[in-house]
Amino acid sequence: MRTTTAVRPGGRSARVQQAVHDAVRQLADEVERDQLTIPLIAERAGVTPSTVYRRWGSLKELMAHVAAERLKPEAEPQDTGSLAGDLLAWAGEFMEDMVSLPGQQVLADALGSTDAALKGRCRQWQCDQVSLFLARAHARGEIVSCDIDTLLDLIMGPLTYRLSYAPDTVSESWLRRCIARALGSM
Amino acid sequence: MRTTTAVRPGGRSARVQQAVHDAVRQLADEVERDQLTIPLIAERAGVTPSTVYRRWGSLKELMAHVAAERLKPEAEPQDTGSLAGDLLAWAGEFMEDMVSLPGQQVLADALGSTDAALKGRCRQWQCDQVSLFLARAHARGEIVSCDIDTLLDLIMGPLTYRLSYAPDTVSESWLRRCIARALGSM
Repeated sequence: MRTTTAVRPGGRSARVQQAVHDAVRQLADEVERDQLTIPLIAERAGVTPSTVYRRWGSLKELMAHVAAERLKPEAEPQDTGSLAGDLLAWAGEFMEDMVSLPGQQVLADALGSTDAALKGRCRQWQCDQVSLFLARAHARGEIVSCDIDTLLDLIMGPLTYRLSYAPDTVSESWLRRCIARALGSM
Repeated sequence: MRTTTAVRPGGRSARVQQAVHDAVRQLADEVERDQLTIPLIAERAGVTPSTVYRRWGSLKELMAHVAAERLKPEAEPQDTGSLAGDLLAWAGEFMEDMVSLPGQQVLADALGSTDAALKGRCRQWQCDQVSLFLARAHARGEIVSCDIDTLLDLIMGPLTYRLSYAPDTVSESWLRRCIARALGSM
């Protein structure tokens, strides 16, 4: 059972979410992943375990929600002056972040969820970023012959695949080739 | 703590693994995912919970191991007479399997693991399949200008990405385009 009430910024619901997410992030630095439990998280957040169960359903889904927040873009992505540059700055930062040990856990937590709404939000954030890069490119007068889906398929597709299955095989030069291929395609 | 002893087919270790995997598969049809626990699985498998903890470490990692078995190719993949056909038959079957509700859970369980060895095995199975398709293509005299990594990046990359984040956006026609692009590239 999960409440679907929208979270008002500053409201009680938002404060609980913030406290629980903060508790998870703090505890992740202090205890082994296998030691992390909902009672422990609730205690640190100053809420009852049942509040956490009611809202997130299970530890796995709570971890997926915290991970998704990490995947959410925090600031306006860098304007590098070209579409290829914008894509490289953005995907390169994602790559660097997700290839790290904590990043690998974030990616696994997000991809380990079967919550379609959560996954949809993660995909939407990526669509929004790429859409912004395309709008900038058009405004600059760059000739662009590919669409959002193709860019995501050919950049975030192989990147997410390799980060998941073989993180030691990603590199900036490989990512540059993915981007060049994506921009040349269609 | 996890034993790294190789599993001898027919040995005690192999029998325990088989019993526990069977128990997970049976219980997955009977109880909600949130109700699945190691004591319940152990009881069904006729082993002690500590046997399961010792061998797999946690429920999450046990589920990832069972999921990985589902991702392991069972039989020699179909020889369709062309590289494009072989890739479509193989990736198309994977797509159909993983877009289903149980397939979505399998994919989430496998990608939700941070066990690098397990992920490496999954990737190796995919490499082996594609390598076999390339060997067949060479034997047929097909001119092939792409390598295993590119085929995985451009077919399994976008496929795994979409199956994870937006399973309702995959289709056979889209997959055909991915394959055509992969074969034309480089």
